[in-house]
Amino acid sequence: MISFLNDYSEGAHPEVLRALSEHNFISTPGYGEDPVTEEARSLLRKAADLPDAEIHFLVGGTQTNSACIASLLRPWEGVISAETGHIAQHETGAVEASGHKVLTLPAPEGKLRAEDVREVLAAHRANEIREHTVKPGMIYVSDPTELGTVYTGAELSALHGTAREFGIPLYLDGARLGAALAAKGNDMTLPEIARNVDVFTVGGTKNGMLFGEALVFSTPGFVRDFRYLEKQRGAMLAKGWLLGLQFRTLFADGLYFRLAEKAVWLAERLSAGFRKSGYELFVESPTNQVFVLLSDGEARYLRGKYAFEFWEKAGEGKSVYRFVTSFARTEEEIDALLGDAADAKTRSDAQ
Amino acid sequence: MISFLNDYSEGAHPEVLRALSEHNFISTPGYGEDPVTEEARSLLRKAADLPDAEIHFLVGGTQTNSACIASLLRPWEGVISAETGHIAQHETGAVEASGHKVLTLPAPEGKLRAEDVREVLAAHRANEIREHTVKPGMIYVSDPTELGTVYTGAELSALHGTAREFGIPLYLDGARLGAALAAKGNDMTLPEIARNVDVFTVGGTKNGMLFGEALVFSTPGFVRDFRYLEKQRGAMLAKGWLLGLQFRTLFADGLYFRLAEKAVWLAERLSAGFRKSGYELFVESPTNQVFVLLSDGEARYLRGKYAFEFWEKAGEGKSVYRFVTSFARTEEEIDALLGDAADAKTRSDAQ
Amino acid sequence: MISFLNDYSEGAHPEVLRALSEHNFISTPGYGEDPVTEEARSLLRKAADLPDAEIHFLVGGTQTNSACIASLLRPWEGVISAETGHIAQHETGAVEASGHKVLTLPAPEGKLRAEDVREVLAAHRANEIREHTVKPGMIYVSDPTELGTVYTGAELSALHGTAREFGIPLYLDGARLGAALAAKGNDMTLPEIARNVDVFTVGGTKNGMLFGEALVFSTPGFVRDFRYLEKQRGAMLAKGWLLGLQFRTLFADGLYFRLAEKAVWLAERLSAGFRKSGYELFVESPTNQVFVLLSDGEARYLRGKYAFEFWEKAGEGKSVYRFVTSFARTEEEIDALLGDAADAKTRSDAQ
Amino acid sequence: MISFLNDYSEGAHPEVLRALSEHNFISTPGYGEDPVTEEARSLLRKAADLPDAEIHFLVGGTQTNSACIASLLRPWEGVISAETGHIAQHETGAVEASGHKVLTLPAPEGKLRAEDVREVLAAHRANEIREHTVKPGMIYVSDPTELGTVYTGAELSALHGTAREFGIPLYLDGARLGAALAAKGNDMTLPEIARNVDVFTVGGTKNGMLFGEALVFSTPGFVRDFRYLEKQRGAMLAKGWLLGLQFRTLFADGLYFRLAEKAVWLAERLSAGFRKSGYELFVESPTNQVFVLLSDGEARYLRGKYAFEFWEKAGEGKSVYRFVTSFARTEEEIDALLGDAADAKTRSDAQ
Repeated sequence: MISFLNDYSEGAHPEVLRALSEHNFISTPGYGEDPVTEEARSLLRKAADLPDAEIHFLVGGTQTNSACIASLLRPWEGVISAETGHIAQHETGAVEASGHKVLTLPAPEGKLRAEDVREVLAAHRANEIREHTVKPGMIYVSDPTELGTVYTGAELSALHGTAREFGIPLYLDGARLGAALAAKGNDMTLPEIARNVDVFTVGGTKNGMLFGEALVFSTPGFVRDFRYLEKQRGAMLAKGWLLGLQFRTLFADGLYFRLAEKAVWLAERLSAGFRKSGYELFVESPTNQVFVLLSDGEARYLRGKYAFEFWEKAGEGKSVYRFVTSFARTEEEIDALLGDAADAKTRSDAQ
Repeated sequence: MISFLNDYSEGAHPEVLRALSEHNFISTPGYGEDPVTEEARSLLRKAADLPDAEIHFLVGGTQTNSACIASLLRPWEGVISAETGHIAQHETGAVEASGHKVLTLPAPEGKLRAEDVREVLAAHRANEIREHTVKPGMIYVSDPTELGTVYTGAELSALHGTAREFGIPLYLDGARLGAALAAKGNDMTLPEIARNVDVFTVGGTKNGMLFGEALVFSTPGFVRDFRYLEKQRGAMLAKGWLLGLQFRTLFADGLYFRLAEKAVWLAERLSAGFRKSGYELFVESPTNQVFVLLSDGEARYLRGKYAFEFWEKAGEGKSVYRFVTSFARTEEEIDALLGDAADAKTRSDAQ
Repeated sequence: MISFLNDYSEGAHPEVLRALSEHNFISTPGYGEDPVTEEARSLLRKAADLPDAEIHFLVGGTQTNSACIASLLRPWEGVISAETGHIAQHETGAVEASGHKVLTLPAPEGKLRAEDVREVLAAHRANEIREHTVKPGMIYVSDPTELGTVYTGAELSALHGTAREFGIPLYLDGARLGAALAAKGNDMTLPEIARNVDVFTVGGTKNGMLFGEALVFSTPGFVRDFRYLEKQRGAMLAKGWLLGLQFRTLFADGLYFRLAEKAVWLAERLSAGFRKSGYELFVESPTNQVFVLLSDGEARYLRGKYAFEFWEKAGEGKSVYRFVTSFARTEEEIDALLGDAADAKTRSDAQ
Repeated sequence: MISFLNDYSEGAHPEVLRALSEHNFISTPGYGEDPVTEEARSLLRKAADLPDAEIHFLVGGTQTNSACIASLLRPWEGVISAETGHIAQHETGAVEASGHKVLTLPAPEGKLRAEDVREVLAAHRANEIREHTVKPGMIYVSDPTELGTVYTGAELSALHGTAREFGIPLYLDGARLGAALAAKGNDMTLPEIARNVDVFTVGGTKNGMLFGEALVFSTPGFVRDFRYLEKQRGAMLAKGWLLGLQFRTLFADGLYFRLAEKAVWLAERLSAGFRKSGYELFVESPTNQVFVLLSDGEARYLRGKYAFEFWEKAGEGKSVYRFVTSFARTEEEIDALLGDAADAKTRSDAQ
């Protein structure tokens, strides 16, 4: 069974495991205050061209999103998100559990539009009884989005302009940031993304690490006392160097970027192959997620050898399915899937 | 520099790393719903003789404590703890951040006494305006305690009796449970501890794992919807099998117990050696933490080669320092420290 | 200036003030545990035909809604509401501040439909990774709705059936319950409403009291420890008898119902008059809120003598305005407004 | 039965009721944005000699305390309080329910000492792993204290100095502030108290109003967006003018101060009388609470005609009881109680 279920079905890149073994018996200060973690911070600062960024390493994405949001909002403030946003849909209300409403907006192809955000912010400001409503205090986007699409520099810059106009932070969830950077259609470098937001994450879990998200506040002093909040939420790893070590490994010589490029390249091959066999794609995702329409028979045929996720019903007896690639997949596995998909289509057409 | 700072300064037992490498490229379902994690649950159920226990694996201790407490309390309920308790002192108010007051009691040698707890519970019940005060809804102990002492079966049983009398759960934080089981003076097996509480943890971070705490609800159905809470708090690891795999490794053939026994044996050797050289111990800790009184000169002398923690000021120009052993320390390292401690004492006496 | 801004612009019915004066110097136990409050509870139980109902009196609506919801949900549970619902729009995220997501659904004319609710509940139950999403744990409706419409017995009964099918409570916010009961189109008595929900409120602030909401749990034991939560949230009035006394006054001989009937009767007269003069109504509200479309000129003309609220923009240079009646308005005031409205229309048509 | 149970057993001063009646049918903007409330703010600013103070009126004390604290703290911060403090003991954990730990200190006669507070703040600052503990972010005192004692100017000024040294606010809970100002031993005027704290309350519930607490932030801009928080917590009264009107009545010509002076004068008479009959006072309270030691027989004897509160057990078969005076008590009632107390003592001595 070959898994296209997601990009976190396997462990880490072998370089990461090797680093763990080599470092294992070196006594190291706890809680992320060790030299290895400091090196990782330096490498990330360099990669993002943010010499003064404040960087924290956390274990998982939900934890990182809700801690970041809670660190910057006051109790009566909410966060603006696409209605498809991860924080709005797939984190069991972690943001609300911190007391903050997620203020959702329709978002074509998963992307929040600056003009929509502006309208919400302006309407709140103009509202005479605004204190009867939640104050929008932050903007959340993810890049890539939940639909695998990526923001252009112009789009992100417009969002940042709106955020600045209203004096609130723009936060970019980069759980799959590597894939965004490697995507066709992406026109931003990591430093450019970093300059266009106030805080962002660089996800490791889905790109070569056992686990780990880097939370990067671009401006020093932008957040206050984050380590208190991190500890309070159980998000401060005792052996924090495990996170630093993994990030150091991936950012020492660009492995992070190469792994993401591989995943995206495999996804492009997959998209092209599906199309060639006559399959329709649900959305043009230029990253490592491929959304394809399959009939029930086609899905059943592929289910025997491949794992992939049902996404949603479509019309005409078809459904959308998601196939995710990662550094752990191979060209051979893609081609095997494409071969079987071609067979499935032939059988399906014959019926 | 040899570290006695704590038992989480190094990585994992080599067996754990080997297991990680072997399993690394096997595609595995996420979020702890995989066969490896299920095996780990079975092994723990067997070790605790609780065939129906509900078991969750989380990354860290603060996270586990606050999630467990929040899963069982209602908003107006608090948790009774020793005033030295970890949740009362060293978790940045994580319990309060969940909305619950920690109701502290004096606790000689770190141990909560059933009679004190009973008094609080009875007083609350008798209070005519009890709804103006926090309702005690849970009892928290750790074994070993913060001072390295262990509960006897009679003590734990009395606490459990009190908990049952008032219809509230007893929770045992076993972040160092291995050390408690290996301690001289401990008169309980793991199944006996398990039967004397309603929920407990088995800590891996401080005993051979990279990280990981098992949260064990003894009775099925005792908690409801825990996985929702786990996800909401960012405590559900995407690659949950990392936790299962580590616990499986440590509980497959008793490695967990052997590692703790080694740590405790080293601590005993250390205590005996300190005493032999004329040092006074601050508390009789039978586990892997040794609290010793050093003069400033003695501390300075040892600081050159060994890392250890200042605990608190004592009288007569001395302070209490904590030395922690673990599976990662060796007999040779203990003896080196003891040799230097003897020298320090001699020099100190000569002055 | 005659106010149609809302139904809480004035104080209380004179009977209420008289009762306050008479009782003023009688020493009375605090926090709602006095005989007057107990009498008020009895009167309400009788009016709702719920002999065993558990009743609490609180000061305001937002407080009552958020306390009631928090008393019945667990941290990972959310409450289903119309997207126009008061808790979703006008309480500054009070429900989210308690940690619970408001799960909104489109609601034609402000009314939640049982089939929509059922679909959400069934979808959640069927979701394989349901713990990654908020668990729907309660249904919230208000009667009348935010648009002044009322539920029929069949509609409410269908919602209650759905709630029971999925084992969650149905909560009815009756901040303007009197108006709903007095409305044309309402086909339920108070006991019938009470039997069709699990918990509801009877609002006093908008119908003859200085302030006060009764929170009625139909079944004894349905909620646990509510008084703790009430105190914790600062919702337990020291001089609780102020609430009991007001409710006793309004329910001793049906004054509550008569005041609401007057308000609704005035609103009907207002609707009919507006229509007669050629105005279009935005929604058919059978309660004490009238939503009418005015041109800018018409609105300006009326603004001189009357206070009323802008609601939202409509097409063709018109906007929706809300006029609210109450026991404190008179037939003469209505007729004066209608006279001026007729003039405004004439002037407007002449232009 | 004459009540000495507390100072909120009766309603309001007749002037307050008269004002309510007179204003009842005047249509008034809601939520505290009306001219009457603005007048009340002006009167309070004048009384406290704080021309720019930001003032909010809330219904009750628990609500006001927890909202004020939540408005100024970040999630990882706690509030320092006397261990006898109202927020620590009698508000059902309202502060913790907002996520903040109450950091308690022993407080002789109920008063927090600046040197103790300083020690806690300095220790936290010096702590190397301070982020593992709650950050002290605010100081809470009440004047009078829970034991009826009052702070001197020197004591309060020292606390304020400490607060400033560490950059955190000092909050004074003045639920019974009138009594403090009227107390023998008090050496501060209201403006002097106001200058020695950052935020304080002026309680109305216990001194002539039906209900109401004024929350005064001395410096404009000290708090941000308080009205959002107020609304979110259900602490913003729809008919907010009810609060403004009551405060306007009490501060228009000093009635607030005269009522408190009467209550304190009655309490002094009561203390003196008790002492004269041979009773021992538990604490020297110069305000409107008298704590007296009674034998069981004496208490039983008085219970027939007077209501008063058991406080705590004392030695030698005696207990402490609390008698509270207010503007609603009369000299005759005090003398009646004292007469019976003298009888009880005689009978008691005779036995």
